[in-house]
Amino acid sequence: MTQTDPIPTDLIADWHTLHRVFIRPEDENSRQTLVKYMEQILFGLHDFLNTHVGVTQAIPLAKLAQSYTDTTINLHPEKKLADVIKDIINEIAPRAVNVASPYFIGHMTSAIPFFMVHLKAIAAALNQNLIKLETSKVLSVLEKQVLAKMHRMIYDKPLTFYDAHVQNVDTCLGLFTNGGTTANITALWVARNLCFPCAKGFTSVEENGMPAAMKAHDLDRLVVLVSERGHFSLQKAGGILGIGNKNIIPVEVDADHRIDMIKLEQLVQDLSRTKRTKIAAIVGIAGATETGSIDPLPQMALLCKKHGIHFHVDAAWGGPVLLSEKYRSLLAGIQEADSVTIDCHKQFYMPMSAGMVYFKDPGALDQIVYHAGYVNRKGSVDLGIKTLEGSREASSLILDSALKIMGSRGYALMIEHGIETTRLFARKITAREKFQLVTDPVLNILTYRAVPKKLGRQLTAPDLSLSRRQHLDACLDDINTNLQRIQREAGKSFVSRTCLKICPADTHKGVVLRSVIMNPYTTDKILDQILDEQEAILDTLDIFDQDVEDQEILDQKVPDQEQYKS
Amino acid sequence: MTQTDPIPTDLIADWHTLHRVFIRPEDENSRQTLVKYMEQILFGLHDFLNTHVGVTQAIPLAKLAQSYTDTTINLHPEKKLADVIKDIINEIAPRAVNVASPYFIGHMTSAIPFFMVHLKAIAAALNQNLIKLETSKVLSVLEKQVLAKMHRMIYDKPLTFYDAHVQNVDTCLGLFTNGGTTANITALWVARNLCFPCAKGFTSVEENGMPAAMKAHDLDRLVVLVSERGHFSLQKAGGILGIGNKNIIPVEVDADHRIDMIKLEQLVQDLSRTKRTKIAAIVGIAGATETGSIDPLPQMALLCKKHGIHFHVDAAWGGPVLLSEKYRSLLAGIQEADSVTIDCHKQFYMPMSAGMVYFKDPGALDQIVYHAGYVNRKGSVDLGIKTLEGSREASSLILDSALKIMGSRGYALMIEHGIETTRLFARKITAREKFQLVTDPVLNILTYRAVPKKLGRQLTAPDLSLSRRQHLDACLDDINTNLQRIQREAGKSFVSRTCLKICPADTHKGVVLRSVIMNPYTTDKILDQILDEQEAILDTLDIFDQDVEDQEILDQKVPDQEQYKS
Repeated sequence: MTQTDPIPTDLIADWHTLHRVFIRPEDENSRQTLVKYMEQILFGLHDFLNTHVGVTQAIPLAKLAQSYTDTTINLHPEKKLADVIKDIINEIAPRAVNVASPYFIGHMTSAIPFFMVHLKAIAAALNQNLIKLETSKVLSVLEKQVLAKMHRMIYDKPLTFYDAHVQNVDTCLGLFTNGGTTANITALWVARNLCFPCAKGFTSVEENGMPAAMKAHDLDRLVVLVSERGHFSLQKAGGILGIGNKNIIPVEVDADHRIDMIKLEQLVQDLSRTKRTKIAAIVGIAGATETGSIDPLPQMALLCKKHGIHFHVDAAWGGPVLLSEKYRSLLAGIQEADSVTIDCHKQFYMPMSAGMVYFKDPGALDQIVYHAGYVNRKGSVDLGIKTLEGSREASSLILDSALKIMGSRGYALMIEHGIETTRLFARKITAREKFQLVTDPVLNILTYRAVPKKLGRQLTAPDLSLSRRQHLDACLDDINTNLQRIQREAGKSFVSRTCLKICPADTHKGVVLRSVIMNPYTTDKILDQILDEQEAILDTLDIFDQDVEDQEILDQKVPDQEQYKS
Repeated sequence: MTQTDPIPTDLIADWHTLHRVFIRPEDENSRQTLVKYMEQILFGLHDFLNTHVGVTQAIPLAKLAQSYTDTTINLHPEKKLADVIKDIINEIAPRAVNVASPYFIGHMTSAIPFFMVHLKAIAAALNQNLIKLETSKVLSVLEKQVLAKMHRMIYDKPLTFYDAHVQNVDTCLGLFTNGGTTANITALWVARNLCFPCAKGFTSVEENGMPAAMKAHDLDRLVVLVSERGHFSLQKAGGILGIGNKNIIPVEVDADHRIDMIKLEQLVQDLSRTKRTKIAAIVGIAGATETGSIDPLPQMALLCKKHGIHFHVDAAWGGPVLLSEKYRSLLAGIQEADSVTIDCHKQFYMPMSAGMVYFKDPGALDQIVYHAGYVNRKGSVDLGIKTLEGSREASSLILDSALKIMGSRGYALMIEHGIETTRLFARKITAREKFQLVTDPVLNILTYRAVPKKLGRQLTAPDLSLSRRQHLDACLDDINTNLQRIQREAGKSFVSRTCLKICPADTHKGVVLRSVIMNPYTTDKILDQILDEQEAILDTLDIFDQDVEDQEILDQKVPDQEQYKS
């Protein structure tokens, strides 16, 4: 190495560099640069929204993937923090998905208040681990308080109940999880274990396993009943818990996509007839992922009570509606649930990833107690004794702070905006000729589909044969699949798509567009623009807008860039 | 309300306030205040370490808990963000646990480099959801790259292998989880499912459940073998997966706390004799939680290969040692594992909560595939198809950035410091008369106990009877329990405690002090101070330092403030 080729000493991994990165930026200049960048991160959502109205920068994924194929780990530092941040701002952010855009109305991930980023940074800086008191102290106590606040929001028990349990180390009103999936798994895990009380030399399913538990209780089958709108995490829970996902039995829904109570009651009756089948739980949905629909919770609660069945409510989406005095009655009956899932990173507007699960009985979580010698000793305050997860960040601190900053009324305003804007969107869709509203919104989710005029006329023809109807459905599925993809790839706005029966009597599930409105900046005008854009795309798809007879034309699908293979 | 009692308009939840909190601080002054506070958060670890040398502010937990009993959610905003942050800095932080202190050498949660807080904030600001491409785009591609880098660190397969899989949408080299617990559960979930190939009208355990799977395969019992040093998440996995936690069979360890290969081989042989028992997995530990010991992975791999058993390595703690050229040979054999758990929030020095699990076979995760209509469609790039968790934050972005900033050598320096400082600590302990080193460190974890002189003399008396020995053990357990608690409550430094057999032949598990050294600022001098403090505490416990005959004296235990009941 010559004198004109100096050693880049600041990019060598030695103790000097290490001390620098571990503790603080190397000098005042570097610190100022970082402050500038971090201001962009911490307050920049607004600017980002203004400069990146679109959802993503339009680069095909397959091409993007080619830049991420080097699997070497650099031996020495490759970049300084400031350069890493600069790269993220310039290279990653524009190619990420701008979930914060008010034009992004397709998924349950959306804009979050700017202060949430601050709170997440604070939780990271404290780096407490809620698995045990010895790595969290006051945060464990605070978490128990937040859990009690949320439990009260759901169950509204007498104050004496909360006074008895808020800081009680022997009981547990709920827990923070990584998200709705682990919350649902935890609820069904508890429900499964409650099915097998100790008997005949058998202690518990937790200890002895599912085969032994079934044998001890003379059972052939354990099942969970949930409407066909149930989240796929419930199926997953069935698989993980050894129940088998085919035993998570989907129950048909009524025209409003709520569980069909007559069918459910019939099923419970049928299953109860054989003594060798046990229903571990019935799951009610409060805000279905695809349609936002809410099951008839009071009737379901009654049925569960009558048959002694654990009643779980998956309110991962809808739970925070309880904070709105105006709409909380939509969730009536939830206080009868034995367990309730609510996500923090959905309508509590927290960053990824945080969920919660609550139990009516403060002793229910005793079903899943685990101790260890070095932590979580018996009788301790350690919050990791009754959780699926182990080490956990202080999500409770974020939720608690957010409630202080927003008030329940602040949350209610956002939730009410979402519901009312979605209802407005439904009216807009109905008013346009080329669209068909498929599910009317109860909360802030609706589905619809594009139906080009000619196809619409054919579909409503009085003499429509079944085969003709099926043919038209296939056309419409292709049209809507392409429409959604083309709009997504254009990057100006985003709705998602799923498959639903268009009419309750259908056997075929049709492709529908799905809209989730939770961003308070999604306005009337933006919704018009999104529909205008879809109509414009529809016009370019006029290959389909004819008396379609020729299947070959239909097969000329536009290749889907996102579905690339390497 | 009179004119002298103005309405606090900035603490009313209305649309004006909402827009303010959602998007940006209300004015330049507020923004500047926030910047000042956030600078404290983002760069303040160093100052915090200097001003709070102690581990926690000394307030008894029971007293602290009394301040966290109000379960009302405020209707209107209670505080502005700046005040919330001020409160966290002034009220919460000093009562949290200063895990960043170099005097905190008791748990696997420690100081993190300051830049990690920046990266966590960035991940929160982007708020991507890795469950699906439509909410993550480039982050999904980046995550696949990071997974391949880590897979290569573990398995070091040929470059052609990584070229084929790094961006392959049909295969999966591993996944990010919430932590080591969900990583271990995922690994055993896959191992469980691999035990039950489709047969005799039976499809899979995932679909049909554990009882049906056992029946179809003519099995009575499914077991997992792991040393008695195994993490309690493995027991929990047994419970969740329907295997039964008593079927997670603990195997005895040798004098070095490594799994006893002779006992393991014998057990495998015994279990294989009956055709109706199947071993789903053998788990090797690479960095036991209590002792840091590493199982004989090459021999375990050979045994698993011979019997066709899934070999899982729980390297939640030890995994990153692979980045140290000097010490990576300690983990030799890990490349033979079918699956490997590594935590990010442990020795990758990332904030809570992030873990990973890797699979040798890029098709292994097909065992746990779940699809849904609206996301995770078949053949898509969606990373949520084969995960236990649902929505997930971009932990991969943090790890990737950290590797760029530190280089593998940067990590290696910290890891080598931990190992070498712990070995130094062991020498210090051995050199002091009042301490007994219980487990010699292989990595950066050791255990020891205080043994007051007189008791030590009695313990080594040649004519020691068993009952006398048991009595002395009970005394030592009380002494060490009290010592650890008093030191913790004094708040200057922290070691943890657990229970281990002091000698391999013991039946009794004795209380030992446990030290985990991963903070690069934990120095020679600090270790001396910690031992000095312990000796000083020991002297105050001189009630025990006598020829103990009177059990009543022993029973005068200091009440444990942490174990309070409400």
